[in-house]
Amino acid sequence: MTQQINREIHLASRPRGWPTLDNFRLVETPMPEPAEGQVLVRNLYMSVDPYMRGRMNAARSYAPPYEVGRVMYGGAVGRVVASRTPSLSVGDVVLSGKGWREYFVSDGSNLERIEPRAPLSYYLGVLGMPGMTAYVGLYDLAQPKPGETVFVSAASGAVGGVAGQLARIRGCRVIGSVGSAEKLRHVRDDLGFDAAFNYRETSPEQALAELAPDGIDVYFDNVGGDHLQAAIGAMRLYGRITLCGMISGYNATAPEPGPNNLMLMVTRRLSMRGFIVSDHGDRQAAFREEVGGYLREGRLVVRETIIDGIERAPEAFLALLRGDHLGKLSLRLSGRAV
Amino acid sequence: MTQQINREIHLASRPRGWPTLDNFRLVETPMPEPAEGQVLVRNLYMSVDPYMRGRMNAARSYAPPYEVGRVMYGGAVGRVVASRTPSLSVGDVVLSGKGWREYFVSDGSNLERIEPRAPLSYYLGVLGMPGMTAYVGLYDLAQPKPGETVFVSAASGAVGGVAGQLARIRGCRVIGSVGSAEKLRHVRDDLGFDAAFNYRETSPEQALAELAPDGIDVYFDNVGGDHLQAAIGAMRLYGRITLCGMISGYNATAPEPGPNNLMLMVTRRLSMRGFIVSDHGDRQAAFREEVGGYLREGRLVVRETIIDGIERAPEAFLALLRGDHLGKLSLRLSGRAV
Repeated sequence: MTQQINREIHLASRPRGWPTLDNFRLVETPMPEPAEGQVLVRNLYMSVDPYMRGRMNAARSYAPPYEVGRVMYGGAVGRVVASRTPSLSVGDVVLSGKGWREYFVSDGSNLERIEPRAPLSYYLGVLGMPGMTAYVGLYDLAQPKPGETVFVSAASGAVGGVAGQLARIRGCRVIGSVGSAEKLRHVRDDLGFDAAFNYRETSPEQALAELAPDGIDVYFDNVGGDHLQAAIGAMRLYGRITLCGMISGYNATAPEPGPNNLMLMVTRRLSMRGFIVSDHGDRQAAFREEVGGYLREGRLVVRETIIDGIERAPEAFLALLRGDHLGKLSLRLSGRAV
Repeated sequence: MTQQINREIHLASRPRGWPTLDNFRLVETPMPEPAEGQVLVRNLYMSVDPYMRGRMNAARSYAPPYEVGRVMYGGAVGRVVASRTPSLSVGDVVLSGKGWREYFVSDGSNLERIEPRAPLSYYLGVLGMPGMTAYVGLYDLAQPKPGETVFVSAASGAVGGVAGQLARIRGCRVIGSVGSAEKLRHVRDDLGFDAAFNYRETSPEQALAELAPDGIDVYFDNVGGDHLQAAIGAMRLYGRITLCGMISGYNATAPEPGPNNLMLMVTRRLSMRGFIVSDHGDRQAAFREEVGGYLREGRLVVRETIIDGIERAPEAFLALLRGDHLGKLSLRLSGRAV
């Protein structure tokens, strides 16, 4: 029997400060019908990522904000379940940015067909946007050299966990910052970081003084705030800071003061660079090739948290912002029959 | 009759906050005698520069601090008045870092002999360290493209005035920030800036909103503080910030909060880079050639303030920190007979 209902998560209202479940709404819509030239895709996994918090605000950032009453866009892996175009066939696996919904139709122009060589959820994590963010931000922008010391914040997260491991593969000493004892154990014991600290127990400034007494050469920043200030203070000459995100400020209702030690940027000849991975599409093939190779060789440890059911996406997203989980957090959509 | 006395300015004590005349001492020492292999140099001009404030503190920065009871080092142009080495002759003009003194001896290893093609004082300004700072910081690091908008703070100063004119020569629209009505007139009417504002009357944030409503592409920062925050806020996508110095904080007794909008570094893909011109010695020949050419072609306007007498160096330096003067500030040492 054919399912007639599609379910989506819409932005119900814009949060001020921390989001709540009230900011989201589960909406049932009629099952979309592919027109001539279109496919119908059933999502299998969908991603929740920190950047989504920024799009819940009204202000345009690097992408338009989510619209109230419309679907939450974002990365998803799906399977073509009906095709009225020769370019895609039933059964094809596709990556899209169509986000928090069970089904959608598309003319295929914004779909990437993939030949899976790994679990499908990996294409939202280590082989997807977060992994490529780590790859581009670390290898292309910070360019760590063997023997250098690399500091990564949010080190057990989807981006930080890959960035730290890529730094290790490059022959660097890697220090991570995390927010719980469990994460501390994980990045040291599972991911192979050389050292790590729990910033809820030890300030980044104090921890870096202890764990990197000779300073750091690279900081991969996912956090901002006191982490960024401490990293600047610990930087060695010619150090590089890659700014990937600043989750410490995403739910602030007023701007927080920035680092008070920027004069060190001059005296130590530091550089700091922000980036958005979507600018670096030309690096995707190299990324999949290189990081895919590390995966197959067993040189990269992948940790995921998978939550079942689209209806749990809002609570999963709130947990993500609180930092409740290890590794990449994704939703698995129940395999209801079409 | 031979002068038997040399005069030097020593650091008498380290300031806390703004320096005062008490922090300096004019000291008479015996005229130094060149040994075999040495020259005796009489300084003709000596430089006072903002970076010297940093060296008055005890902490090591990119160079060792001045020592209490020892001479204030810095750029100077002098003439060889006695030589016991074949490598330099009496009459040769030399650039040194020997600083605030009338005479010194040297084995020549840290002297640069110059063939003057411009007034000697220019070798402390537009053709010296400040000019090269502007050249490297703007052309090599920020790399402005024709048609881009460039913002320069401390725009009437030794570095800012050159940086702004170099940006104009590169075909950019140039906006300057200054601290007085006279400087405002100067950078607009004499230096040819497209627009300028007096930050004591209009905040940098407001001024940039009015003068660069479509944003800026490059910020050449000599100031830090609210100028830096405003520049980040006004940056267009892929904007570049060159950090040359942060004079707004040099006399602070406690660290001031940094810019509260660094997340824009990510969303707008900005880069920020600090530098010290002495790292870029390999660019000196190209700098002298290119900027010397602009000077001879009359494409660069040079403004200097020259103060006579080594004994006035401390008051000149304090005036420099207050921003009392236009253009490069240098001391001319009285031509007493040897």
